[in-house]
Amino acid sequence: MIRVAVVGAAGYIGGELLRLLLGHPEVEVVGAVSSRFPGKRVDGVHPNLRSITDLRFCSADEVGECDTVFLATPHRAAMTQIGRWTARAEQVIDLTGDFRLDDPEAFRRYYGSEHAAPHLLGEFVPGIPELYRKSLRGADLVSVPGCMAVAGVLALHPLVERGLVEETAHFDARTGSSGSGATAGEANLHAERSGAMRVFAPTGHRHEAEISRHLGISAAMTATGVEAVRGVQTICHVALRPGADKSAVRRAFREQYQDEPFVRLVAQRRGTFRYPEPKILLGSNFCDVGYALDEDTGRLITIAALDNLMKGGSGNAVQCMNIRRGWPETLGLSFPGLHPA
Amino acid sequence: MIRVAVVGAAGYIGGELLRLLLGHPEVEVVGAVSSRFPGKRVDGVHPNLRSITDLRFCSADEVGECDTVFLATPHRAAMTQIGRWTARAEQVIDLTGDFRLDDPEAFRRYYGSEHAAPHLLGEFVPGIPELYRKSLRGADLVSVPGCMAVAGVLALHPLVERGLVEETAHFDARTGSSGSGATAGEANLHAERSGAMRVFAPTGHRHEAEISRHLGISAAMTATGVEAVRGVQTICHVALRPGADKSAVRRAFREQYQDEPFVRLVAQRRGTFRYPEPKILLGSNFCDVGYALDEDTGRLITIAALDNLMKGGSGNAVQCMNIRRGWPETLGLSFPGLHPA
Amino acid sequence: MIRVAVVGAAGYIGGELLRLLLGHPEVEVVGAVSSRFPGKRVDGVHPNLRSITDLRFCSADEVGECDTVFLATPHRAAMTQIGRWTARAEQVIDLTGDFRLDDPEAFRRYYGSEHAAPHLLGEFVPGIPELYRKSLRGADLVSVPGCMAVAGVLALHPLVERGLVEETAHFDARTGSSGSGATAGEANLHAERSGAMRVFAPTGHRHEAEISRHLGISAAMTATGVEAVRGVQTICHVALRPGADKSAVRRAFREQYQDEPFVRLVAQRRGTFRYPEPKILLGSNFCDVGYALDEDTGRLITIAALDNLMKGGSGNAVQCMNIRRGWPETLGLSFPGLHPA
Amino acid sequence: MIRVAVVGAAGYIGGELLRLLLGHPEVEVVGAVSSRFPGKRVDGVHPNLRSITDLRFCSADEVGECDTVFLATPHRAAMTQIGRWTARAEQVIDLTGDFRLDDPEAFRRYYGSEHAAPHLLGEFVPGIPELYRKSLRGADLVSVPGCMAVAGVLALHPLVERGLVEETAHFDARTGSSGSGATAGEANLHAERSGAMRVFAPTGHRHEAEISRHLGISAAMTATGVEAVRGVQTICHVALRPGADKSAVRRAFREQYQDEPFVRLVAQRRGTFRYPEPKILLGSNFCDVGYALDEDTGRLITIAALDNLMKGGSGNAVQCMNIRRGWPETLGLSFPGLHPA
Repeated sequence: MIRVAVVGAAGYIGGELLRLLLGHPEVEVVGAVSSRFPGKRVDGVHPNLRSITDLRFCSADEVGECDTVFLATPHRAAMTQIGRWTARAEQVIDLTGDFRLDDPEAFRRYYGSEHAAPHLLGEFVPGIPELYRKSLRGADLVSVPGCMAVAGVLALHPLVERGLVEETAHFDARTGSSGSGATAGEANLHAERSGAMRVFAPTGHRHEAEISRHLGISAAMTATGVEAVRGVQTICHVALRPGADKSAVRRAFREQYQDEPFVRLVAQRRGTFRYPEPKILLGSNFCDVGYALDEDTGRLITIAALDNLMKGGSGNAVQCMNIRRGWPETLGLSFPGLHPA
Repeated sequence: MIRVAVVGAAGYIGGELLRLLLGHPEVEVVGAVSSRFPGKRVDGVHPNLRSITDLRFCSADEVGECDTVFLATPHRAAMTQIGRWTARAEQVIDLTGDFRLDDPEAFRRYYGSEHAAPHLLGEFVPGIPELYRKSLRGADLVSVPGCMAVAGVLALHPLVERGLVEETAHFDARTGSSGSGATAGEANLHAERSGAMRVFAPTGHRHEAEISRHLGISAAMTATGVEAVRGVQTICHVALRPGADKSAVRRAFREQYQDEPFVRLVAQRRGTFRYPEPKILLGSNFCDVGYALDEDTGRLITIAALDNLMKGGSGNAVQCMNIRRGWPETLGLSFPGLHPA
Repeated sequence: MIRVAVVGAAGYIGGELLRLLLGHPEVEVVGAVSSRFPGKRVDGVHPNLRSITDLRFCSADEVGECDTVFLATPHRAAMTQIGRWTARAEQVIDLTGDFRLDDPEAFRRYYGSEHAAPHLLGEFVPGIPELYRKSLRGADLVSVPGCMAVAGVLALHPLVERGLVEETAHFDARTGSSGSGATAGEANLHAERSGAMRVFAPTGHRHEAEISRHLGISAAMTATGVEAVRGVQTICHVALRPGADKSAVRRAFREQYQDEPFVRLVAQRRGTFRYPEPKILLGSNFCDVGYALDEDTGRLITIAALDNLMKGGSGNAVQCMNIRRGWPETLGLSFPGLHPA
Repeated sequence: MIRVAVVGAAGYIGGELLRLLLGHPEVEVVGAVSSRFPGKRVDGVHPNLRSITDLRFCSADEVGECDTVFLATPHRAAMTQIGRWTARAEQVIDLTGDFRLDDPEAFRRYYGSEHAAPHLLGEFVPGIPELYRKSLRGADLVSVPGCMAVAGVLALHPLVERGLVEETAHFDARTGSSGSGATAGEANLHAERSGAMRVFAPTGHRHEAEISRHLGISAAMTATGVEAVRGVQTICHVALRPGADKSAVRRAFREQYQDEPFVRLVAQRRGTFRYPEPKILLGSNFCDVGYALDEDTGRLITIAALDNLMKGGSGNAVQCMNIRRGWPETLGLSFPGLHPA
């Protein structure tokens, strides 16, 4: 058993972390930090945890030494508080955007402000087990990527790795409303957000910078909010390189992901769910990946889907913790998702 | 052409009023009052009005004399401002809760505060054409009832009128999220409200007091928010009186509503839409009414559905204006609703 | 490890059974019977089970001896096939409507046909652990009740048991679309069903007969389909008996359910989720129960919410199996539900 | 007054045509042909038309001479019946896919069968007023394009026309469920389709062929079903040509569309609805168009939104009729859409 704490525990990512960690057989939750609700019962904010826990939110000062701390605060809070948490915990897993880019200049461009701890930018291991598993085994500082970035990276990585595709790609990302968080504004009122097809970032979304970084390509992203609470789907448009063909693509995906516990290759000819779709992934840590090739033009479409609070956030973070601790990666993450839902 | 103004024009009821009034052939909109957005373009807040109007919101002081003023402010603002508007306009149609009850004591009980203009409580004619048409013809002060109250009243009025049912009834009301308004709080965030079946008032909802008043019975209401943006459905449970039977019920509804332009009796044996359902009423001013009788027990179920922003609010208000002006009641209100939608 | 089979495994209830049983530590799934898809991969129909199982559907004949068989066929198929399954399995847990009533006459009235195995009607123990736990410990024949009936029974049982309420109650039940099954017709097309508030059974719903049976009262139900895939909410309207009061109600619920692993009493004063709501129960086996009293009238509202495929079906069935086998009741049923979702 | 008939009147496009035509001041509906429901009341299938019409469906044989016939049958039925309708009506407006392409070879490739009336392929004027208004003034044969094609064409036409963009473009189209029609199959059951992000045509969608034809470029489309009943949004990705810049783009859109009655340029800096979104277009005939430029890369995103049953089908067809008859184009099409909805 290790001792863990969640900072920013009243948010959606924080709540999902609590759900996973309270059900994790090797973990004891010793702190659920909320600046908004200190002293309040956790299940008053996360009603799905009723009868699961009697925990109350606490202030940051009340958290003592622990083994792993998860930071799920708003952006910018993590980089200013980071010293406090590295002093108290062996491992810090950050789920904010603060340490996702390793370049202060890129941070300034995409986040619009100076970084408060630029010396640490290069110290964080990106929390993508499929790309950085070896480094994650010893990682005391982990930065979990953005939900649409995870999907985008997993949708293309095997092909870039093998030089099958050109180095410019466009990502069309769709996301549910939970990505806006528990304190979102009027644009996220149900009457405004319901049934939306809302292009909130036609260009320049922060997650495109992460994809560019991890794949070493030039990535552009268009992000749209669609009607869903949970769920991200990222569609990648990329050109096959001369000589590459469909069977090379198939082989690349298979080789890369056949032993991955949380990436499933979806390659059915028929059926309603023949391409990846987040609807069947609610609460699960899977990222489903699929593709289609326009043989006439050599244009390739790859598709990834995940639950933004799970493989796109909290689930991914727990997987990183499992790796660091030498536990089975799937520990505490075995919920398969529902159908229908 | 008459001159009209809408106060509280940036809200959902206000926006719907503007949509209707801008399309009304006998009306000129001379003011759209918003305390939040004075000077801002109306279509910046109500994007469905793009290319329909270049109007900008104004402050209350900028509205001069006019023929009819519609008050669509938050509750409590109408009763404190009422003097200002009666001084400037021939007719005031209030869509808030402030003048829906005629008894200061009932107001205190259901609204939790003293009434600011109790001497006017009895002066407002209730904006239910189906019950108060004659009075509405000369009404300079009109109070449009709550959306669930309109549905509840229309679901039962013909039967009470004819003495066919007992004088105690229970109303189970379901409503979409737009009823909470454009400035609703965290409980109405999409992630929280989506897919809800939320009992927000198991007992004591304000609209039950209105039903009791208009029908002269003892009404109780349970109100639940369900997944929809627009739409109210009210289900009334009541016992038939000895001697009353199904054909008497049928006759009562038919007699009462056959000439009503906006009440439709839904009495199909079969089909998906054989009972009233708000889904097909979006944007329309119809209230659909239906019923079913449990012949073994004499328990009667009557059902009414409407669009809360239309027959449950703005549409009803425009119908009242039409009556007062001697125009056809359906003027500007002829949109039939969509299927599917 | 026991050997289990699911008959009707391609339906929604069948798929949920497979999900639970494949994740159950004491169970081996030896057959997934589907008359529509014999030979087809299970995960082709239930895409959430990809990478969880390589199982294929089989025909009934291919199922050999086993310990527990779950029947999740359409209504009427169970009563005609029952002999086959009792011959092959020690325990049969039926999830259809065929053995939910113990009276052939009531069956005829509510199901519109003669019962094919009336001699067995009294042999099935009702699958409601909260009422029939003792009998379930030895039950080789179990009939799992309807989803809305489970909710209705659990919403009222403690009060009836203690004589706190009158013996006539009305239930207003709301349900998602998955209750109509995987082969539903045109009324369940997305364009028709989306955003519905559809009174599909104003009176005479089959589940009301089950509530009457289990509570020994006269129950009437109005059933409405609302926008959701999973989820049932049942609101019970009942009158308190003279002498009963709010604290007696509170005590009754507390006493009855405090040790129940899957019934949670929801009794918050405040907060978005202060009354039971299925939204936070997706995939969980909880039934949440709450209430509100109109002190003026003595009218009591009790509310229950559950996931119709879980506590309203498959989860409840697995709980019954656990009881019969002497395992912890929560085995394989510990998923807490998601928030938000 | 002209006499019109709708063939395929029981479908969603047919129902929308009836709604529009029954409310059109210059039109008398003399036939509503349905092979499925001859003799049945129209409002039994289209419940929004209750109290609007007493019309009954008829067979094709019962339709006599008329001025305009609208064909809203399934694909393939129009090309085999076309002779019958040209014999009876002065003008035929086809809303199926049968005459959307002018090249039999392209038809074979995209529709998978031989064309039954290839000699007529070139005779139909495409029903896009914004491109073919002059020809439509005298058009006795009109083929209304696919919903996603209309959006795609309008999103890019002004830029192609002025040579501002490269001649290869990718379209990411999202659509609601009503596009699948009133007789869709199991994949469109509510439980399966609700909350979907379903890539149903990653490559090779028929509508891409229409875009290529009308714009004279190489268009590729990825089509995804998202959660909505009505609504199409098409996002076009295209590269600016050297020398072209943002102000040229702005000017092009403004010049092209400033006098169009049903295309609105959405170009707000801020606000929830600053890019086109179908949510506010339900029932309206507007196509909203907007754009964003990634100045670093010269990659342009243009966005169009419409109601697939209106500007993407029936509304567009009525607009074409209005043009042919010399009436104001907006006649019968003035509903502005709802907010919120």
